Amino acid sequence: MSAESRAAVLVEALPYIQRFAGQVVVVKYGGNALAGASDSDALALFAKDLVLMRAVGMHPVVVHGGGPQISGLMSRLGKTAEFRDGLRVTDAETIDIARMVLIGQVNPQIVSAINIHGPIAVGLSGEDAGLIRAVARHADLGFVGDVTAINPMILEGMIANDFIPVVATIGTDAAGQAYNINADTVAGAIAEALGAEKLVYLTDIEGLRLVVDDPTTLIRQISPDELERLVVDGVVAGGMIPKVESCVGAVRRGVRRAHILDGRIPHVLLLELFTDDGIGTMIRSKEVFP
Amino acid sequence: MSAESRAAVLVEALPYIQRFAGQVVVVKYGGNALAGASDSDALALFAKDLVLMRAVGMHPVVVHGGGPQISGLMSRLGKTAEFRDGLRVTDAETIDIARMVLIGQVNPQIVSAINIHGPIAVGLSGEDAGLIRAVARHADLGFVGDVTAINPMILEGMIANDFIPVVATIGTDAAGQAYNINADTVAGAIAEALGAEKLVYLTDIEGLRLVVDDPTTLIRQISPDELERLVVDGVVAGGMIPKVESCVGAVRRGVRRAHILDGRIPHVLLLELFTDDGIGTMIRSKEVFP
Amino acid sequence: MSAESRAAVLVEALPYIQRFAGQVVVVKYGGNALAGASDSDALALFAKDLVLMRAVGMHPVVVHGGGPQISGLMSRLGKTAEFRDGLRVTDAETIDIARMVLIGQVNPQIVSAINIHGPIAVGLSGEDAGLIRAVARHADLGFVGDVTAINPMILEGMIANDFIPVVATIGTDAAGQAYNINADTVAGAIAEALGAEKLVYLTDIEGLRLVVDDPTTLIRQISPDELERLVVDGVVAGGMIPKVESCVGAVRRGVRRAHILDGRIPHVLLLELFTDDGIGTMIRSKEVFP
Amino acid sequence: MSAESRAAVLVEALPYIQRFAGQVVVVKYGGNALAGASDSDALALFAKDLVLMRAVGMHPVVVHGGGPQISGLMSRLGKTAEFRDGLRVTDAETIDIARMVLIGQVNPQIVSAINIHGPIAVGLSGEDAGLIRAVARHADLGFVGDVTAINPMILEGMIANDFIPVVATIGTDAAGQAYNINADTVAGAIAEALGAEKLVYLTDIEGLRLVVDDPTTLIRQISPDELERLVVDGVVAGGMIPKVESCVGAVRRGVRRAHILDGRIPHVLLLELFTDDGIGTMIRSKEVFP
Amino acid sequence: MSAESRAAVLVEALPYIQRFAGQVVVVKYGGNALAGASDSDALALFAKDLVLMRAVGMHPVVVHGGGPQISGLMSRLGKTAEFRDGLRVTDAETIDIARMVLIGQVNPQIVSAINIHGPIAVGLSGEDAGLIRAVARHADLGFVGDVTAINPMILEGMIANDFIPVVATIGTDAAGQAYNINADTVAGAIAEALGAEKLVYLTDIEGLRLVVDDPTTLIRQISPDELERLVVDGVVAGGMIPKVESCVGAVRRGVRRAHILDGRIPHVLLLELFTDDGIGTMIRSKEVFP
Amino acid sequence: MSAESRAAVLVEALPYIQRFAGQVVVVKYGGNALAGASDSDALALFAKDLVLMRAVGMHPVVVHGGGPQISGLMSRLGKTAEFRDGLRVTDAETIDIARMVLIGQVNPQIVSAINIHGPIAVGLSGEDAGLIRAVARHADLGFVGDVTAINPMILEGMIANDFIPVVATIGTDAAGQAYNINADTVAGAIAEALGAEKLVYLTDIEGLRLVVDDPTTLIRQISPDELERLVVDGVVAGGMIPKVESCVGAVRRGVRRAHILDGRIPHVLLLELFTDDGIGTMIRSKEVFP
Repeated sequence: MSAESRAAVLVEALPYIQRFAGQVVVVKYGGNALAGASDSDALALFAKDLVLMRAVGMHPVVVHGGGPQISGLMSRLGKTAEFRDGLRVTDAETIDIARMVLIGQVNPQIVSAINIHGPIAVGLSGEDAGLIRAVARHADLGFVGDVTAINPMILEGMIANDFIPVVATIGTDAAGQAYNINADTVAGAIAEALGAEKLVYLTDIEGLRLVVDDPTTLIRQISPDELERLVVDGVVAGGMIPKVESCVGAVRRGVRRAHILDGRIPHVLLLELFTDDGIGTMIRSKEVFP
Repeated sequence: MSAESRAAVLVEALPYIQRFAGQVVVVKYGGNALAGASDSDALALFAKDLVLMRAVGMHPVVVHGGGPQISGLMSRLGKTAEFRDGLRVTDAETIDIARMVLIGQVNPQIVSAINIHGPIAVGLSGEDAGLIRAVARHADLGFVGDVTAINPMILEGMIANDFIPVVATIGTDAAGQAYNINADTVAGAIAEALGAEKLVYLTDIEGLRLVVDDPTTLIRQISPDELERLVVDGVVAGGMIPKVESCVGAVRRGVRRAHILDGRIPHVLLLELFTDDGIGTMIRSKEVFP
Repeated sequence: MSAESRAAVLVEALPYIQRFAGQVVVVKYGGNALAGASDSDALALFAKDLVLMRAVGMHPVVVHGGGPQISGLMSRLGKTAEFRDGLRVTDAETIDIARMVLIGQVNPQIVSAINIHGPIAVGLSGEDAGLIRAVARHADLGFVGDVTAINPMILEGMIANDFIPVVATIGTDAAGQAYNINADTVAGAIAEALGAEKLVYLTDIEGLRLVVDDPTTLIRQISPDELERLVVDGVVAGGMIPKVESCVGAVRRGVRRAHILDGRIPHVLLLELFTDDGIGTMIRSKEVFP
Repeated sequence: MSAESRAAVLVEALPYIQRFAGQVVVVKYGGNALAGASDSDALALFAKDLVLMRAVGMHPVVVHGGGPQISGLMSRLGKTAEFRDGLRVTDAETIDIARMVLIGQVNPQIVSAINIHGPIAVGLSGEDAGLIRAVARHADLGFVGDVTAINPMILEGMIANDFIPVVATIGTDAAGQAYNINADTVAGAIAEALGAEKLVYLTDIEGLRLVVDDPTTLIRQISPDELERLVVDGVVAGGMIPKVESCVGAVRRGVRRAHILDGRIPHVLLLELFTDDGIGTMIRSKEVFP
Repeated sequence: MSAESRAAVLVEALPYIQRFAGQVVVVKYGGNALAGASDSDALALFAKDLVLMRAVGMHPVVVHGGGPQISGLMSRLGKTAEFRDGLRVTDAETIDIARMVLIGQVNPQIVSAINIHGPIAVGLSGEDAGLIRAVARHADLGFVGDVTAINPMILEGMIANDFIPVVATIGTDAAGQAYNINADTVAGAIAEALGAEKLVYLTDIEGLRLVVDDPTTLIRQISPDELERLVVDGVVAGGMIPKVESCVGAVRRGVRRAHILDGRIPHVLLLELFTDDGIGTMIRSKEVFP
Repeated sequence: MSAESRAAVLVEALPYIQRFAGQVVVVKYGGNALAGASDSDALALFAKDLVLMRAVGMHPVVVHGGGPQISGLMSRLGKTAEFRDGLRVTDAETIDIARMVLIGQVNPQIVSAINIHGPIAVGLSGEDAGLIRAVARHADLGFVGDVTAINPMILEGMIANDFIPVVATIGTDAAGQAYNINADTVAGAIAEALGAEKLVYLTDIEGLRLVVDDPTTLIRQISPDELERLVVDGVVAGGMIPKVESCVGAVRRGVRRAHILDGRIPHVLLLELFTDDGIGTMIRSKEVFP
């Protein structure tokens, strides 16, 4: 690459580095986002981006789920997963399994990938320091929970000490009962509670499209109002709904920008953050200018 | 109880409360300590003591293992536990199971019992923020580790913010490989690293005895040198060895007092801390005066 | 005492210790409160309680008078004490005597009893740093004063440095003229000015009674309004009036609780503070819940 | 006075004001120093100087005795003062009288004179916060004490908050027994303990003279060694001995300068502090240059 | 001078020193003020006053112009100065010359005179850190500017570190174009922006007079309203207008007092600041009492 | 440019940004460095680099000379420049001219170019706050000075407040006499005094070469010892000597790296700082690893 090209990238990136220094970016990380490469390579690249973001003063916070892994352990234990309206029916044994998998398997895997670069990531669950307070969604679903409150104190302490928190999305009620909670929703709630600069969903799609099968209809920027209309009109559907609703809610309640990115692109986080063009779909209020 | 008796207890306790305010107490919590009552009652009493210690300005740190629970899940998954010299042979699948059980099952159970009283406990594993750096003990044992270094920064941050850390004893090496580590040993290493005032082992025995079967030979106080001689002489043996060696090492390297207590006695922590007589066996240097 | 009983007292006391840490408790100490024991023993027990309160982070402030001792020196100097409506007529010579006795005799006696435990008590009079600003009550009474303002700065400095201030109730006007002031009233005014948690009167009665001679009518809790009615109805009278009025005023203006205790009970302060039942009579607003 | 003269005084004074800002000046104030004017006028002028010193950032500390006043009250109570080698034999009753007079009469008189200008002076005795620890000088003298230690913490707190401490020279032993102590000696010990810039004795003489009756032999500056020789040679004698010995000791142990001034000169403190020529006799180490 | 006289000056001065400690005094220094003595002597005396003011905790800020010196260099470079309504027509070459003279000649001369006493003065121009934002006054005048905003941050930083800023009155617009600005006006604007205690103009007149030729009509104190009337009535005219208008504006917008002093009087700043009578003409709001 | 290329530049740059955050970089800026473009374009690019460096937390300090400009004004004033051994003979009139040009012309030109981006640059000369203390080099040269001491306090204050200091290299002696000083030397002395991370010379050559006319002999890295040998061997000569000696001295006394760069390359500072390969010649101790 020529010196001129290198200089151009730097001149473009440095102002973003200044702008984002000290800001919180909540990243929802899902297993499916990693389809373009072997899982552990993708995880390593993702971890590297987090480490670089932190290196220039940003505060990434990772939120993750782990549906397939829960199903995996259930199956090994001879338990059949049952779903209702796309939600896993969660009895006492299932919530114990979910807790083990999310807190004891997926979470340390991410923490460990980051900590190869230094002692900087810390695993948390929503049970720690009252982080996620939850309530049962519906009696038929068992221990599937909805977020009622986020207590961000433990996250704020971590952030103030430059740690990268990695959050497993188990919540509890006042009696200490654990619930399994949708990770997309938790990511939005945490972004709100922290007054995050950005809320980022790493997915396995390029971004939102007006016509799903037509890549030329990729939406670059959209406001919460416009996005809500797309849901009503059925343009957005299925598993994207919780992401999209969290984006809309978070941006309306103070998060400056939400992003739906293609997690299969190497260093997609850096490209979104530090280039003028950005990448994927950005959700922002009309009042917020670049 | 008469006013006079109540006043006497208070007059005795208040100076200890002053002395221990701001001090760290590392408590090793083992499942066997709880034999005298139903498990969840014992856990609730233990949690209450931690909450009260914190209420008067102390900084309890909990370290736990979970051997029986690991064996439990292995058995459910159709895996046979193999032991060599009392140590579990730990292959790749076993360490994954140990990690799930310790971090995802036992740890949140303790955290949850404490957090019924407020958002004060936080679960950690040795993988978080480089807390426990480990190395393989012996090729034959697989992923059984020895502690090579404690990085107490994450614990110090928690303590400074009045959180109660609860530590699962999984460690990692530089490449991010996880190891299962003896919790008695970790408790001693953490007490040293934090310059703890006290290191407490909650067990299912009354304390150390000169003659194991003779309750009248209970040792109230003993120095590290004397205690080491008891090991050499075979008076102390078996599962007590890691506890006793950790006590000796910790006291020699700056922990003021180590205690082996009977976890079956309700509120045994409070009784040890806040009464003149204390309880169980205390290990302290001869130079340290009451 | 059994371990169980001891544990019960501790479990009960520790939350109060947390609640009261950092709080100010103003204690009016009168000679008559000590009738149950020899004076110096009672003073020693009282001093011990103050030291223990401070040990667990509370900030006791002592306010005292010394009427009998003033009369004593006057008589030794051949001066006859004259009273009008229960108040000592105070000419120039008498105020000099009162000043000598309160500041130079009673005050150092209390300070000295506390300081046997360490360098923690400091004697003050209302002349120091403008602590008590006063005005003459009535021309016929000479230098008998009413409080017009409390300047709590010197007390706040002492409290911030963990000293125990002991206040002799001499006040001054703008010209520097000294006045003798009722100690019960000063205690209330100081409690208000400091935003004290508690205002405590140590007396030689068990507490307030609905029927003075009937111990079964002891009032455990009462609101300022109800208490004022008892004064109007004549149930409370005589020397109790300034105490009761100070309690009413202090509680109405921000002091959480006022107490009339029997100073003859050993460690009565500890028993009131650190047990669920408390002791004596408590005056509190109806809005304040336990 | 001409503008030129005024300007000259200011140009001379301002550098001293800078140099002394934040410095401690211990002033021994004795009744005899005030002979040139009516007592209360002299006290008012003295108080004014202290207030002005504080106004420009200095930290005056006043130490006083009160021998004549003690004798006065003893005589009113029908007690004969007995002296041995110039020291008052002090039985239990006498120490009570000394305490009342020094703490309850002389001290508030000085405090009150200062506080006419604002709430800035605070009376202390050596019993407060362990300020003066003492031991009996000789069994025959009763409660006449020698200083064994100064605990300056309470003074340092006052100074940090810009209060002017006024110290009555009663000390105590570990058991709380009070002793009467020479105020000249206490002034020197406090100046040392505080690392004072200056130690000033206000007396009723012009300063030290080589020939007592010859005003032309006034000593302007002298080193501790030279001064000690004057004591050996008998040039300095009588009541000047404790002053002179305190000056020698204090200067040798870190006080920069000691002064013996004529307290009868109005504003003598200001003239000494803020003019090039100074006034009276200055004791300083040869190593200390102007 | 007698001790009594010296003491009187000190007693008078010390309260002013207290009152002014920590306060900002903006001094406009003009070449003409120095007519009573050789320039370098006058500058040395002025520098000494600034050093003494700083010594007692004040924060002087110097603002200067340099009209005659600009004309001097123009003439050496063979350029004729042209004036319109008393203002120098300033083309591109002239503003370069003005910048060189003010920033590179007059400013370092003042800085250097102060710094003989220590490293305390720092030269600034209005271009530094956006201190003076300006706009062209009139197309015909070229680069003659009016102040549109003061950014006092750089001055505040200097003041906080006890430096004496010396300001050359070149301002800039958003494009970086330099302008020459009237120094009297800048002094007033800076005094406002800093919330100065005083704004002082050192001139070559005794002060304002009701009748210019009659020294007995010197105005000692005047309010902004009254002063404005004198301008309307033509009593104040010519070069005094910008000074007087700045005084009026500054006092109306928060500067406590403005002064027009005779810079030819040695130590005129000290005499104004530290004596009861002051000197010259003081402009203050009627609401401000001595 | 491809996303991959952009990501590669970012992944490379971010760790340098972290490493250099909070570090001081002293940049010597000379007129000749700008030959590749029109002067004002080159200055604008240079200013942009400084602004970007500051944006990511670095602390650039600019040092400049201005020989040609001094000669220019001398010639306009009809004065002939005389040189001895390459040094300008500097009489009283010449130092006044040098002062005007450096402080009043070149310095504000650089300050102004930076401040178009915000109020962040502040012009200083060595006369400000005693920054550069100097002594005459040789009587025959007049007011040509050598640095005897740097007082970095004013620079440290600026840096702490995120200002960019721009230093004109006029120094003074104790009497306030100004001297003209070689800017290369001053840059090295300031880098030492500030413990700079880097000392950078922007020149009009590509870097040091072993054979001046052979571009293939460009030196990429060299130690102080090796570089000194090149001077002895005559490989380095002429105007490069002061630069090279300053580099050697600075690196030996704590500056981590010195650089000789080609100022004609756009964004040369960014390319040196934020790419693995760097650019130009780097001088560093052998002990310092990349």
